[in-house]
This record gives sequence, C-alpha cells and structure tokens, in this order.
Amino acid sequence: MGMAAIGVALWKYVMRYSPHNPDYFNRDRFVLSNGHTCLFQYAFLHLTGYKAMTFEQLKSYHSARTDSVCPGHPEIEHEGIEVTTGPLGQGIANAVGLAMASKNLAATYNRPGFNLINNTTWCMIGDACLQEGVALEAIQLAGHWKLNNLVVIYDNNQITCDGSVDLCNTEDVNAKMRACGWDVSEVRDGCYDVDGLVKTMLQAKSSTEKPTFINVRTIIGIGSKVAGNAKAHGAAYGAEDVRGIKQAFGMNPDEHFVLHDEVYSFFQDVLERGICLEKQWEVLVSEFGKKYPDLHDEFMRRRRGDFPKDWRGIIPAKSSLPTSPTPSRKSAGLVCNPLASELSNMMVGTADLSPSVNMMWKDRTDFQHPGLRTQCGINGDYSGRYIHWGIREHAMASVANGLAAFNKGTFLPVTSSFFMFYMYAAPGVRMGALQHLQTIHIATHDSIGTGEDGPTHQPIALAALYRAMPNILYIRPCDSEEVAGAFIAALEARDTPSMISLSRQTLDQYPQYSRRDGVVAGAYVFVEDEAAEVTLIGVGSEMGFAMKTRETLLAKFSIKARVVSFPCQRLFEAQVVEYKRDVLKYRSSIPRVVIEAYAVNGWERYADAGFSMSSFGKSLPGKEAYKYFGFDENVIAPEVAKLVEDVRRQGIDCLRGEFRDLNTA
Amino acid sequence: MGMAAIGVALWKYVMRYSPHNPDYFNRDRFVLSNGHTCLFQYAFLHLTGYKAMTFEQLKSYHSARTDSVCPGHPEIEHEGIEVTTGPLGQGIANAVGLAMASKNLAATYNRPGFNLINNTTWCMIGDACLQEGVALEAIQLAGHWKLNNLVVIYDNNQITCDGSVDLCNTEDVNAKMRACGWDVSEVRDGCYDVDGLVKTMLQAKSSTEKPTFINVRTIIGIGSKVAGNAKAHGAAYGAEDVRGIKQAFGMNPDEHFVLHDEVYSFFQDVLERGICLEKQWEVLVSEFGKKYPDLHDEFMRRRRGDFPKDWRGIIPAKSSLPTSPTPSRKSAGLVCNPLASELSNMMVGTADLSPSVNMMWKDRTDFQHPGLRTQCGINGDYSGRYIHWGIREHAMASVANGLAAFNKGTFLPVTSSFFMFYMYAAPGVRMGALQHLQTIHIATHDSIGTGEDGPTHQPIALAALYRAMPNILYIRPCDSEEVAGAFIAALEARDTPSMISLSRQTLDQYPQYSRRDGVVAGAYVFVEDEAAEVTLIGVGSEMGFAMKTRETLLAKFSIKARVVSFPCQRLFEAQVVEYKRDVLKYRSSIPRVVIEAYAVNGWERYADAGFSMSSFGKSLPGKEAYKYFGFDENVIAPEVAKLVEDVRRQGIDCLRGEFRDLNTA
Repeated sequence: MGMAAIGVALWKYVMRYSPHNPDYFNRDRFVLSNGHTCLFQYAFLHLTGYKAMTFEQLKSYHSARTDSVCPGHPEIEHEGIEVTTGPLGQGIANAVGLAMASKNLAATYNRPGFNLINNTTWCMIGDACLQEGVALEAIQLAGHWKLNNLVVIYDNNQITCDGSVDLCNTEDVNAKMRACGWDVSEVRDGCYDVDGLVKTMLQAKSSTEKPTFINVRTIIGIGSKVAGNAKAHGAAYGAEDVRGIKQAFGMNPDEHFVLHDEVYSFFQDVLERGICLEKQWEVLVSEFGKKYPDLHDEFMRRRRGDFPKDWRGIIPAKSSLPTSPTPSRKSAGLVCNPLASELSNMMVGTADLSPSVNMMWKDRTDFQHPGLRTQCGINGDYSGRYIHWGIREHAMASVANGLAAFNKGTFLPVTSSFFMFYMYAAPGVRMGALQHLQTIHIATHDSIGTGEDGPTHQPIALAALYRAMPNILYIRPCDSEEVAGAFIAALEARDTPSMISLSRQTLDQYPQYSRRDGVVAGAYVFVEDEAAEVTLIGVGSEMGFAMKTRETLLAKFSIKARVVSFPCQRLFEAQVVEYKRDVLKYRSSIPRVVIEAYAVNGWERYADAGFSMSSFGKSLPGKEAYKYFGFDENVIAPEVAKLVEDVRRQGIDCLRGEFRDLNTA
Repeated sequence: MGMAAIGVALWKYVMRYSPHNPDYFNRDRFVLSNGHTCLFQYAFLHLTGYKAMTFEQLKSYHSARTDSVCPGHPEIEHEGIEVTTGPLGQGIANAVGLAMASKNLAATYNRPGFNLINNTTWCMIGDACLQEGVALEAIQLAGHWKLNNLVVIYDNNQITCDGSVDLCNTEDVNAKMRACGWDVSEVRDGCYDVDGLVKTMLQAKSSTEKPTFINVRTIIGIGSKVAGNAKAHGAAYGAEDVRGIKQAFGMNPDEHFVLHDEVYSFFQDVLERGICLEKQWEVLVSEFGKKYPDLHDEFMRRRRGDFPKDWRGIIPAKSSLPTSPTPSRKSAGLVCNPLASELSNMMVGTADLSPSVNMMWKDRTDFQHPGLRTQCGINGDYSGRYIHWGIREHAMASVANGLAAFNKGTFLPVTSSFFMFYMYAAPGVRMGALQHLQTIHIATHDSIGTGEDGPTHQPIALAALYRAMPNILYIRPCDSEEVAGAFIAALEARDTPSMISLSRQTLDQYPQYSRRDGVVAGAYVFVEDEAAEVTLIGVGSEMGFAMKTRETLLAKFSIKARVVSFPCQRLFEAQVVEYKRDVLKYRSSIPRVVIEAYAVNGWERYADAGFSMSSFGKSLPGKEAYKYFGFDENVIAPEVAKLVEDVRRQGIDCLRGEFRDLNTA
C-alpha cells in the first residue's frame, strides 16, 4: 500500500510499454526486486489491461488455484513479469543485466535516426537490496558501466521483518550510492506525491551520465493500524483493520474485492498508448530494414532469438583438436572462442580470471562505458561482448540472468570462474535454471587437481548441488572432444543453463574413444570389452584414473574392465531405458565402480562402488594432491580387484543394497 | 612484495601478540583476507619467531611436502593463522566476527581497572574485498556496530588478475567507506613509508568511534620488471627477473633462500615483548580473580572453551514437549531459547527473520553499539547476544566463523534464516566446516511445505549440497523430540558445524516413536514390524507421509511396512556396520523406499526406491503444494504397493542396480 503512488506514477505516466503485447521488444522493463510485494505489481498489471491478469486471477494470490498467474513472488512465465524475483538482492542484478542488454543492442544496431533500442529499465527495491551482497556488487557494476538507462526506486519505508531498519543498517545510503557512481534523487512524500514522483522519474530517465537511485520515503501499511510498523510487513491486517483502511480511503468497508469504474477509466488510455507505441516502433524497424537490410536481418534474427543456423560448423572438428595432454580449460577456449567471435548473441565474461579461464577471443571488444577510455585508458564500448565482471561471482550469474531474460535467445551469456566460486554464484545460477534461461557457466579448476591453492579452492561437495538442481546440465568433459560435446549440449539446451566443468591441469586426450555425441547422451561406452568383469565409470578430469586403472587391472590382476565415460547425469537420465541399461549393464553380473575426486553422493544410482573423496582437499601440487588422496591406479586397481574377487566368490548379489566406498584414505 | 612495509609496520611495531604462544588470549588478531598473498604472512611469522614456521618450512610453499605449514592459502590449523582464508571477501567478514567477539567479551567481563579484553583486529584486504558481496555486507555491519577495534588495511595496488582495477571498479572507495560508517585514512607511499604506516595504524587503533579503513597505495611486484602490472599477480617472475629484483634491493643475486642476520635481529625484540605482554595479562587475570571470583570462574570457563557441564539438563524433557501438531521451527525455539538464555557462549542471530525463526528468548539483550539508543531509540549493547544480521546471509555465516574462531568454544554462534537462503550463505558455512568451527545454523521453512512463497523459496537441491559437504551435520528432525536430539547432536559436535532443518508448517508429533538418541545415531527404527514387506524411510518434515503411507498400505493393500526415521546421513555413517545393517535391513528381501520432498540424489545409498522431487516447486499453500507434487498417502501407497508386488513376484533381486523413482508427477 505504501508503494501505490509509485505504481501510479510508473504504470500510468512514466513507463513505455504495451499491455496488449507484453513482449513488445523495445518496452521499458520493470523489475520488482522486492518480489514479496508482488500483489502491488499484479494490481497494476490488471488495471492497465494485461489480458491474463483478470480480476478473478487477482483473487488467486495465496490461494490453492494451480493455474494462478499470481504466485507468491513474480514469475517470468506470466505476462508482464520480466524476471522471477524473490531471493532478495538478485532482482536489482537482473535489472542491471536488462539495462546492459539495451545498451549493447543500441550500440550494435541503432543508427542515426534509428533508435531501435532506447528503453529504460525500472527497478523497485526494498531495504534488502541495500544489504544483500549480490545487490551491492550489481550496484557497483551499474555505476562503473554508467548505465544511465537504469533507474532504481528505493521503497524507503525504514521497516524490515525484524522492525526498524536501524536495527541492522545505519549507513548513509545516498552518499554510498553517489560514491558508487550513481545519481541520487529524493522524494519525501512517496505515498501521495504522484506529481513529484513522476517528475523525479522523468528526470532520472533523461540523466545522461549515470544510473539513478530515487530514494522514496514511504510508510509501510499506510492507512492501517500498523502503519509504519514491522507488523505490516508479513502478516495480514485482520478484518477490522481492513474495514478501517477502507474507511480511511473513502471506500465502502462492507465491499470486498471491488474495483470501481473510475479506477479502470483512470488507466484506460494505457492500452491504446501501448499499441501506438508498438506500431510506431514496427514502422521504425521496417524503415530501418530499407536503409540497412543486412543489419536489419541480423537484428531480426536476434529479435527472434535464433542462433545462426550453422553454429555447429563453427565448433572445431575432432581432427583439429589437440591429441597431446591438454588442460580442458584450454580445450574450452579452443571451442568457445570461435563461437564467441561469430555468434553476436554471445556475451562472454569472467569474474576476474581472464588469464585462467581462456575465454578471451581475438579482436574482441570489452563491454565498457566508452568514456572509460579518456578517463583511465581502458578500451571498450557498449557494443563490446567481453565482460570484466570483477570479483563478483554472484552478481555475474544474476546479471547474466537479466541479459538472458531481455528477450529469450537475443543474448546467450557465458560466465566463467573457478568451479569453487560457483558456490558464491549458486543462488543466481539456480534462478537461471528456475527461469529456463539459457546461459553457459564455464567452471574451471574443478576437483582437487587444481592443486596448490588448497582445500579452500578444491570443490568436493559442489557437484552434488548442481547434479541435484533441476533444469541445469552439469557437464564434466574428459578431453577436448568431450569439451566440444559439452558446448554442443549447452548450445542445444535452449531452455536450460549449463555448467561446463573443466580442469586446470593437463588431461590425456582419447581421440580413439571420446565422442562428442556421447556427451550429448550424458554417458556412453568409452572402452568396450565383452569379457569385462567390471565397469569403470570415468568422469571428466578424472577419466585418466579410470583408464589407467583399467590397464593396471589387466596387467597386474588379469582382470578385464570396460570403461564408461559419464560427463552428465541429467543428459543420461533423458535417454531411453534400453540405452541406459546397455551403457551401464544394469543387472548384469558385473559390478560398476565410479572414480571421481568429489563426494560420491548421487553416483550410488549408477554404481555399486566408488573411489571418491570423503574429506576436504589439501594444498599440494595437483598430481600430489591426487596421490595424497589415493587417486593413483596402483591404489585404485587393487581395491577394484578385491571387489571383483568378492563378486567372483559370492556373486553380484553380495553388492545389493550396500554401496562400497573403496577409498579408505 | 608491495606489502612488505605494511608487514614490517604491523609485526614489528604495531600488533600486540606473542609468537611464543600463538594462542595468547588477548592477542591482536590478524586476518589476511587476500589469502593468496600468504607468503607475505608466512615470512613475518618466521621472522618474528613462530616455532613451527622454520626456514625449511618457508621453502615448502607450493611444494609437495605433505606436512607443510605453508599451504597455498593460510590455514587455521597452523600457528599464527587466525582463520583460513582464500575464498575472497570472507576474510574481512571473519575479521568483523573477531572484533565482535572482543567487544562482547570486553562488555561482559571487563571491569574498571581490568581491561581483560582490549585487543585489536587487523585485516589486510585487496581489491576483491571491495567487490565481493560478502565483504560489502560485512563492511556495513562493522560500520553499523561501530567496531572501533577493527582496522582494515587496503593493499591498494590497483591491479587484479585481469589487469587494472579500473576494468571493473571505478567507485570512490574512500567516500563509500565513510558512507558505511568507517573512518578513512590514507598512506601514499605504502611500499616504503614504514613510519607513516605505523603512525596511521596507531591512530586507527585509538579511534574511539568507528572502524578504520586505511587506504595504502602500493605497487604490486615492486622492484621487478612487471611492477605495477597484472603479470605480477599470479605468475612467477622467472630467474632473470628475480636476479634483477635482488640487485635492485642490494642483495646478492647468486644467493637463494638466504636471510641475513640483520633481518632476524631487527625482529628479535618481538618474541620477548610478546612473552612480557602475556605475563602482564596473566597477572591482570589473576588479580581480577581475587576481586571478582565468580566472574573470573565464568571467564576462565569461556577461555577454556567449555560449555556449562549441565547443558543437557537445560534441554526440555520429552514429557514437556508438545504432543499436538507443531511446526518444528517452533519446537526449535522451545529447545534453543532456554539454552541461549543460560549458555553465555551462545551468540544467536537471524538474517532479518526474527518473527519466523523463533530464536528470540525472553530477557535477551541485542548486540548493538550502545550509542544506537540515543541515536535512534534502538536498545542493546555490546554485551548482547542476539544479533540482527540484516538481510545478509553470507556475511552472517562468515562473521559467525570469525566469532567461533576467536578462541575455540568461547563462542557458539547460532545463525538462522530460511533454508533456501543458506544457499546464499553456503560459501561461509563451508568455510566453517573446513575450519572445524562449531556453529549451529537454524534453517527453517525447509522443503516445499513452506508453501505460498513459491519455487524461489522452496529448496529442492540444497540438501544434496549439505549432505555431500564434509564435516557438517545436516539434520532434519521430524518432531519436537527429534528437534531436541538435533540440538544435542549439534552441541556435542565440538569440531563440526550443524544445520538443523525445520518446517514452517505444523508437523504431527510422534512421542511414542521418536527418540532424541535416535537422532544422535543419524537414523533409527521408528516403527518396527517383523512381518514387514517394505521399509519406509521417513525424513524430517515429510515423516508424516511415511507414517500415513504405512497406514494406507496396511488398510488398502494389506501390506505391512516398517518405518525408519533418518534425520542425518553423516551421523548414521559414523555408526558401526551392524547397527546400520539392522536399521536398514541391508540384503534382506524387503525393499527400502525413501520419502522426501527434495531431489533424491544421495539417498540411493540407503534406499532402492524413492518418492521425491525432480522439478522446482510451486507457489501454493503448503499442503496443496505437497499434494500437487503427489505427496499424499493415497498417491504414494499404491506406488509402494506396486514395488512390493514386483518383489513378491520377481524377488528382491529385481531391484538391484536400478534405483526406482516412484514419483511420476
């Protein structure tokens, strides 16, 4: 209720959008970063004529209706919602991404007289977005990039769940925003002064240099008995108070769920205005096409969200990939750099690890404010597609979601960092998966092979998170050919983010065994042996241990082993059951052993035993770290041999129901 | 190399510590938040006489020595290291926790003439700590709490991995720190001006009102060919450049690993000074004991890190716990509040969810700067043990690690938030587990039962992370008695953090079945039935579904089921194999089915089939959300009955090697 006047200012007077077509390409984007206040947004979507948002739907908020378009937080699937928000702080980062998207498209496609893209991104925030780290990171980035097409409106009600915001925050917010490179405006009476709000918002929009932060003083639950109190934050008012509120605002307290015609007629012009706006824009695009036909074609492809048809042809053929030991992070560069160079929708960046992640392609331009060149000699402009995210993994993932959400397919963000730091980014990566946004996360330095940096940098448990997370592909390729397969799978997954997990260290290449189409199937037979007494499951950067264990088993124990490469559990799950049974030899009489330097959790579905990690890692050179934890064919093979011996003696049934941890280190 | 002068100022002139006894209680704490520069710290630990840091050990940095005390990032296990750092941004949050600890102890135990605790916390940071969200959150908190015993030294070399910091950060750092409530000083020549550094540091220490940020301009790799360049960040200089560096500083370029006597003698007084400092302090404590014997006893107990002996007696007996349906978050309050009230080492707080997590106890005092009372009417002082963390989950966990690391056992931090937001906090929780720091994380609103807030707030994959993470107990109790068991397990785990996972919604109570000692064993037989044809594994907030499925199986299908309660996988793993086999009936002829509204990943170890979640959740009232995804005995029981029928017909062997997902919703 305290934000109502802000809503009137935005949806009636300020924002340029079309309720008739929520997907109008050059619309202003609105992000409700304080997503728990979504009823506010739903009300305005209804009033301004979004078709799906019927009056009956409005009543479905917090109801048991399974087809509600009014969930407890805004969800991207519904008309008029740009991004799903709720996990606090991420919405403002999404808004930064949406504003970047506009800047990049404008710099790429606008021409004199043809401002194809000139929309504004509006973002409402509450106190959380001034406290959550991800928001503070995003605020820095917006200031650094001088995103003057971004306006953040701070619903400054001074109240959080716990009570006064003074309980936990007493900083000078305006001074801080200015220090971060933002323009700051204030509106004192944010509950009633619609004119003041409109004027300030329009000024913000015409700011030529910086993003704008509008600090709007509001009163939470205004008109209720708990106005200005934390009790107005989460709890219902109760019938009596609701009566009082209605009376205070001149409404009939006995009427429930009633909207009078005068309210509708107040917003009536919005629909037509939007249709007009869109028509004018389509005319502009059409004129643009006459003058710049090639650029127009490219723009229309981006607008449709299509990739160039021949993107698969850009990926290097197996024959041109390295055959000598190569770190898979390097392989990823060999595969991704040509793609990034050719695909104008790819926006590639790193959280300050350019020299490590190999994602820089030749002749790239950095995404930067062009003024940075004169300011401090840094090259780049808004048309750039390489992003220096700084040491801000969580914002990187969350801003990337905003880029991807601008218009599905128009941007394909590629982020990169050490795999370990995708724990920082996890809440953002998850929101991408929830929203079905295609992004690719390049996670290098996976497992303990990363070495000297030690246990702080050696992920043990993180793969379990990404393998359990719905709608994301966590892919661990074992060599360059599998890296190519990983990129193919990631590019094909148009509604799903992917994480490609890569080694710091050199990996043996297996051109005679590895297959890109095998990666796309999730798992495949790497080395077959009809006389095998055991299946070894090799995974990503640890495939070498499986292959060497196979050799040692034969040489020292006369045991034949077959090897399965298993880069992605989720892709494998999508295969038909016959394929899965063939690959893993379900219910055959031979056991399956997975070898991976992570916690084994989850592999129990595919294996009877595992050689894995049950502790944190250790600071040692990569090879030594592996050895320290028993990752060595001379340690693994005897353990596998014992298992095979047990099965020989007691039959495969001895393994039923009790997974064996072979690593006793 | 660029920070050398800072090190001289700190270890020679400014810090009060005792190399002879790295655990001297009132020592100044030093945190290297830019942990990758640890060789800097190791060198000074060696020069000032830390026994373990021999010259030979110094050489072991990045070597294959498995007993090295010089890992690639500082590790708490080694002398002179206060906290393990490396994941950027967290160190400064740890430092805030260490400074809070001092403030709280001082406010609790200091008396006129007896400043038992008056140490300073020093924290070195690089650019990452001004970019990572967790650091930005912690900076706000330190400013809000006016932690004037905290000094942060910014190694301002303007270089990150990617190059100039201007690539990704152009904010006005000093203005921002001031806006956050910090005093700011600058040192222009941080590479040589030791006097200036010492003077500024001592001024910072005597600041009476605020934490201090010292912005020290340094040159990375000073004296080398790559001075001031990103190439000096991660890569080795190479032999030739090392020669040049040595020559530039007047050293013999042909000598390797040589420290001259003049260097040692320069630091010689430090050891004796530290011993003196410690002796004086022990005299002070002893005099304090004469004047305040009771307070002294309590202080000594805190110093030893002991809990009061009778803490188990504070936990409510089974007979006094509720028997009617109760949300387990409420049960947690019933168990934890009396503990928090009595145990002076407990520091309990929440990320702005006080009304939801039930962690407030009667007569508590908030941890606040006492001046806040006059400033804005907020009550509290530094002796307070209830912490309003604000909406800052990552800082909450990381600052809590600092509290716990002050001196093991002196503080037992208890954090709280919704389970989902422990994804934000995960990097901090993990560092607590890695460092063997006892903390308790109260994670409420677990699983889809949290309801209306929708999929953004419904964790699906997160449990898989915490179950896979080494050295942490993720505990899902099913009722009030099991909540008591969860707290007992968490309090007994003196080297391990715990996360107690609780429901928003009411849960049936099972006083006839549930056992606190069963929780401590990880899993136990809840309902036995010798004639059972299936074992149902019930977990935490979803136990009700297992129990109702058992009834329905009997009533509708004449199938008898036994039920196992399985609150904690890691505790169960620690049991002897016979116990584990008894509970789960390994290799018996009856199948085991786990029922949990999470991704099933990892349960395959203990079960043959599962009724679980394979997608994100949905915004519906809790009960409806469960029903929507098939969590309903009338849906589950028929699926289990089919499984039992298969086993009757084909024998248990039909389940070997192929886990069954019973939830086809």
